[in-house]
Amino acid sequence: MADRAKSASRRLAIVEGKVKNDWLLASAEMLGKRAEEVLAANAEDVRLAPGYELNAAAIDRLMLNSKRLDAIRSALVEIAHLPDPIGETVESSKRPNGLDVSRVRVPLGVIFMIYESRPNVTADAAALCVKSGNAAILRGGKEAFHTNLAIHAVLADALDSVGLPRDSVQLVRTTDRDAVGHLLKMPDRIDLAIPRGGESLIRRVAEEAEMPVLKHFNGNCHVYVDASADLEMATNVIVNAKAQRPGVCNAAETLLVHRDVASRFLPMASEALRKAGVELRGDDKSRAIVPINVASPEDWDTEYLDLILTVGVVDSIDDAIAHITKHGSGHTEAILTRDLASARKFVAEVDSAAVMVNTSTRFNDGGMLGLGAEIGISTDKYHARGPCGLRELTTTKWVVYGNGQIRI
Amino acid sequence: MADRAKSASRRLAIVEGKVKNDWLLASAEMLGKRAEEVLAANAEDVRLAPGYELNAAAIDRLMLNSKRLDAIRSALVEIAHLPDPIGETVESSKRPNGLDVSRVRVPLGVIFMIYESRPNVTADAAALCVKSGNAAILRGGKEAFHTNLAIHAVLADALDSVGLPRDSVQLVRTTDRDAVGHLLKMPDRIDLAIPRGGESLIRRVAEEAEMPVLKHFNGNCHVYVDASADLEMATNVIVNAKAQRPGVCNAAETLLVHRDVASRFLPMASEALRKAGVELRGDDKSRAIVPINVASPEDWDTEYLDLILTVGVVDSIDDAIAHITKHGSGHTEAILTRDLASARKFVAEVDSAAVMVNTSTRFNDGGMLGLGAEIGISTDKYHARGPCGLRELTTTKWVVYGNGQIRI
Repeated sequence: MADRAKSASRRLAIVEGKVKNDWLLASAEMLGKRAEEVLAANAEDVRLAPGYELNAAAIDRLMLNSKRLDAIRSALVEIAHLPDPIGETVESSKRPNGLDVSRVRVPLGVIFMIYESRPNVTADAAALCVKSGNAAILRGGKEAFHTNLAIHAVLADALDSVGLPRDSVQLVRTTDRDAVGHLLKMPDRIDLAIPRGGESLIRRVAEEAEMPVLKHFNGNCHVYVDASADLEMATNVIVNAKAQRPGVCNAAETLLVHRDVASRFLPMASEALRKAGVELRGDDKSRAIVPINVASPEDWDTEYLDLILTVGVVDSIDDAIAHITKHGSGHTEAILTRDLASARKFVAEVDSAAVMVNTSTRFNDGGMLGLGAEIGISTDKYHARGPCGLRELTTTKWVVYGNGQIRI
Repeated sequence: MADRAKSASRRLAIVEGKVKNDWLLASAEMLGKRAEEVLAANAEDVRLAPGYELNAAAIDRLMLNSKRLDAIRSALVEIAHLPDPIGETVESSKRPNGLDVSRVRVPLGVIFMIYESRPNVTADAAALCVKSGNAAILRGGKEAFHTNLAIHAVLADALDSVGLPRDSVQLVRTTDRDAVGHLLKMPDRIDLAIPRGGESLIRRVAEEAEMPVLKHFNGNCHVYVDASADLEMATNVIVNAKAQRPGVCNAAETLLVHRDVASRFLPMASEALRKAGVELRGDDKSRAIVPINVASPEDWDTEYLDLILTVGVVDSIDDAIAHITKHGSGHTEAILTRDLASARKFVAEVDSAAVMVNTSTRFNDGGMLGLGAEIGISTDKYHARGPCGLRELTTTKWVVYGNGQIRI
């Protein structure tokens, strides 16, 4: 399977962009024509779901209907319309000896995606891999087994229809966990592994893999309200950062407030947050101002993914940064300030994938930052940091043209 | 030790470039003033070298004299004069909602270098790490223990002299191998491990490390002489690629010749290569043209690092590319051709860190490609591919400025 993927990847690396886009559009069209087949397979997975002890929310995530299938098709069309990352000259120079040196964007090769029960990932991941010139090996969750088989059949037939190798997108057809471990030991044939799912899945893949792993751990994100903040803006931003979609990694989990504005800001903010259904847990200083629950020592390190927010009062921006350095996960932090020096200090000293000034942590997202589509938000620093789009699925190659230069 | 490095790295990340350059210049100056101390320590290592079973060549690599010490000092001064990679805005855009989005270059954090007996690496590696804003933990070979201690003492005193934390550059002061294994299990405190040395060292570090590893494996590099090549140029290039410095990773190990020019080219090339002291080992087709030794099946996969070259005749450029795909190590390959289509095809289809057209494989080198100084040549595709300079020791951070935007 990995050998066939490697072989397909060599063709994908040099195929014209139009052929990859034709495949994306053909896939979208064929998913529409074969909707019944896909939805029937999905119904079978939904029927079997209680046997996997999926709760109602998990079954909802698993379930497809024609609206959700249309969303999958639209995503494919959108990816077709993104610019092709392959072939871009990233930098170039003419050397003193006349050599023309350039660095050109090329695919990584073969990407192994391991994911849980959302069936849209099968189409999304295949699309992002192939658009960036990579072959994909997909291993979805057992709960979506029939759905993934049906979607994959369409994608593979669409590969045939445009003359690309069927092995460009392969699906691991067993739900045996050992198959994953086996593939993770093939660094010569698989260039990157991407686990998408809970922390235990990511940790397991990171530990077993002998190839690089694009890791997407969770975010313990902070919003710091500086002494000079526009407090109305700060209120809007913290409500958005916490409550607009609390179950995602770029939602805020802790609010830090400068002591000089705490007595004015905390009553405004706590009222707005309560209206949004948020439970507040505070330190002594914040609880002296507003009647909220007590934060335990663990709260400061907890990613709630829920309508709960820890609140602390700090003596200075330095204290806020020290708190973030100690408790943050390096995902996304925001400062609210009107002071230029504070903004620059926070941006420079906070070591996170994204640092926001006067805006919501929720904007750390591939679509929002202009990447088009994303395959995940990397919490690593190596290769890819923050939202990962097509470009993060590529590498570069040095290309040197000369006219007989030799080294002396 | 790793905690102290992390703490120092936070200061290095935000220090002005001038302070880092002052440290480099102070180190160069102090190494000159304290030359006696360093050379005496080195003499002690050289005295002990036979006990480590070092051969004459290895002792030569270990030995310092005032000329070699001057070369180390010059390298520090050169690195001081390179542009600071930190703070560069890699890309930026204004989003439709008015957010100003940019991606800014920042240090990785803490870099752990594990290397063998060349004492210049102690100064080089520290210089590249600190210039790129990273703290360094250095672990040199036991054979250079006293020399490394002496050089490190100078570097640390120079850190003091410019007001940077001494922990910016730390030396592992034990030759116990377990110390390395222990540090390799600290992915939260060490951001990158760089082994520099033989293949077994690199494999061991890659297997044990829980953080990313910048790997520099060897090169089985090919030169392909196309049917349309300028044969005189091709002769000069293959002699240079093979014989100018045969013991390095970007030296050529295999020569492939298109059948249409083999009978003209091989006599010219073999004469020139023999004059350069190179032993040729060929396939049947090349041996029908020139009287050379027989290549065994293993020869095609061997990195000789010596004055030996395998020679094969191929029927087409496709056969040459297929041979390279099968036997190459993805390091550096060159084509000699006057045909534009052949050049473009070779560049597109050969999946190597560097692809050369009408020039020597020996140019795949940080200095030659314009990177200034290099910390190694990566044979990986992830994060860094090919020569790694200051930029490859960095990552980026997303910085977003708004005026109260929230996500809807």
